[in-house]
Amino acid sequence: MARGIDEFDLIRRYFEPLSNGEPGALGLRDDAAWLRPDPGTEIIVSADAIVAGVHFPTSTMPGDVARRALRVNLSDIAAKGAQARCYTLTLQLPDTVDEEWLAAFAAGLAGDHETYGVSLLGGDTTRTSGPLSLSINIFGQIAENSMIKRSSAGAEDDVYVSGTIGDACLGLGSIVGGLAVDDAADRAFLEGRFWRPDPRVSLGPALVGVATASADVSDGLVADLGHICAASDVVAEIHQHLVPISDAARRLVTDNQPLRTNLMTGGDDYEIVFTAPVSARETIVSIASQIGVSITRIGCTIPVTSGATAVTVHDEAGDIVEVGVGGYRHFGEHVAG
Amino acid sequence: MARGIDEFDLIRRYFEPLSNGEPGALGLRDDAAWLRPDPGTEIIVSADAIVAGVHFPTSTMPGDVARRALRVNLSDIAAKGAQARCYTLTLQLPDTVDEEWLAAFAAGLAGDHETYGVSLLGGDTTRTSGPLSLSINIFGQIAENSMIKRSSAGAEDDVYVSGTIGDACLGLGSIVGGLAVDDAADRAFLEGRFWRPDPRVSLGPALVGVATASADVSDGLVADLGHICAASDVVAEIHQHLVPISDAARRLVTDNQPLRTNLMTGGDDYEIVFTAPVSARETIVSIASQIGVSITRIGCTIPVTSGATAVTVHDEAGDIVEVGVGGYRHFGEHVAG
Repeated sequence: MARGIDEFDLIRRYFEPLSNGEPGALGLRDDAAWLRPDPGTEIIVSADAIVAGVHFPTSTMPGDVARRALRVNLSDIAAKGAQARCYTLTLQLPDTVDEEWLAAFAAGLAGDHETYGVSLLGGDTTRTSGPLSLSINIFGQIAENSMIKRSSAGAEDDVYVSGTIGDACLGLGSIVGGLAVDDAADRAFLEGRFWRPDPRVSLGPALVGVATASADVSDGLVADLGHICAASDVVAEIHQHLVPISDAARRLVTDNQPLRTNLMTGGDDYEIVFTAPVSARETIVSIASQIGVSITRIGCTIPVTSGATAVTVHDEAGDIVEVGVGGYRHFGEHVAG
Repeated sequence: MARGIDEFDLIRRYFEPLSNGEPGALGLRDDAAWLRPDPGTEIIVSADAIVAGVHFPTSTMPGDVARRALRVNLSDIAAKGAQARCYTLTLQLPDTVDEEWLAAFAAGLAGDHETYGVSLLGGDTTRTSGPLSLSINIFGQIAENSMIKRSSAGAEDDVYVSGTIGDACLGLGSIVGGLAVDDAADRAFLEGRFWRPDPRVSLGPALVGVATASADVSDGLVADLGHICAASDVVAEIHQHLVPISDAARRLVTDNQPLRTNLMTGGDDYEIVFTAPVSARETIVSIASQIGVSITRIGCTIPVTSGATAVTVHDEAGDIVEVGVGGYRHFGEHVAG
């Protein structure tokens, strides 16, 4: 438990006010909460834990820890086509956490409750001799049988991705000191994309009935598209020059082809990668315009042939770009916690 | 992540087989799971985290870690009157965890899946530089609006508790070395009550419509009854000599009145403490006999008067026994992790 704070006081002061939106939370004054999905809907559950020194630097400001923990979970729910509703939080606090930290942490959550329309359903706080860590279970709602799975991509679908890819990976590079970003505005933009992901909460639900499969880009574009391919028993071919990158990213990677390629495996984008039939192209253009999120077609799926890798990346000349194995590379592998 | 094991391999090998009971788990191959309560029911959610060195000794066998994590959560669901159905598990693994540990841990969970009829819905695994920790969110089902709350005790109810109180606290004392339990059978019994709590999964649902308020005894009898009293705006008077203790406990505390009193604040019993109207006495006797769990009436609630403490404990002579503040005392306060 945090220094000099009783668990019950802590819950009353900082967390109970965050539970107002869910009657089933019972003001966090019971051992459990109830959750009743609206008629005709089901609950979508996702669980994600983040650990200081592994998923975020130990020096991260408390409000950014709060926002990051919540938003990576909001992103999972959005990518499944559901509307996030509430979440539980288990918090493991080292002795270094004081009341000022907790107040700022709770304020960070409160701000995102406003932005995303979610509420705290329950949780647990405990102390730990290890690093600060947070585990969130988030609950979304969706019409029954509508969840957009990983496993239902067609074998001749288009592949799309929202927003821009690679910003958070460059931002993290700048934060941990390995990457020089000279332009201050670019640096702020890229680091902000790491600190405060912008989960695609409007886009995901709009893709229900349109996308055949989807995932959020947390482990890296190639890895997450690879998960879709593996689950759907297809392979994908994407084109590096079509993968959307921001102006800030473009300025950094212009003359650095390996860095350009890294963007596609870097992780932490929290965009949505999805597949859809060719017949849905116009619908997707219209969704993008209605929601105000860019959606870019970056390739297609094809049937699996023996020995094919899940995702093949091509350059403008049509040659295959080596991208390595992809997959999530934890922050802790770059710097000590 | 555990030494030399890829996260995806680990999930395939050890955790996917645990998810077979829930179709919405999608074989743990998606970013989220779906959960559809049966018609007319709602979901009851409880979240509990346990940390090595705080909630259990770091030397605990992996199967016991698994069982303990699951059972403390099953206990919460039972105390609310619900039937546990599935759970998510977020696991933070230090580098010292190897594949043998994981295999034994998963086997511990699998055994309890059989015993309690639950299944794994989803989760997350990550590595940590700190101690091993597990966070479980458990999902039960109950008829809508039937959850037995903390906050609905009447002001002239009886107070009951299931099973025996204080065994786990004595067991922990023996495990961490402060308490000598000379009789080997008694020692095994008491330590077993700490290692492998026996959540009252049959009793809880039988109390729906009978108990006015209930909680599981995790923080200690006096503290948990105190939570009911605070939430229900009543106070309780209980009688120390009526509080049921096991034969093993009785042999230890015979001539040790302070130790006898400690049992009531010791925690980790995972029994159910509940209130019920006087008119329910016969029903409760019949429930106890049908389920085969002892239920003991230990006192009553009365209206709050100014300055009254939530729970007053009396001895056989009617005098008030000082029990201290009660509340949960973490393992880590007794021994270093």
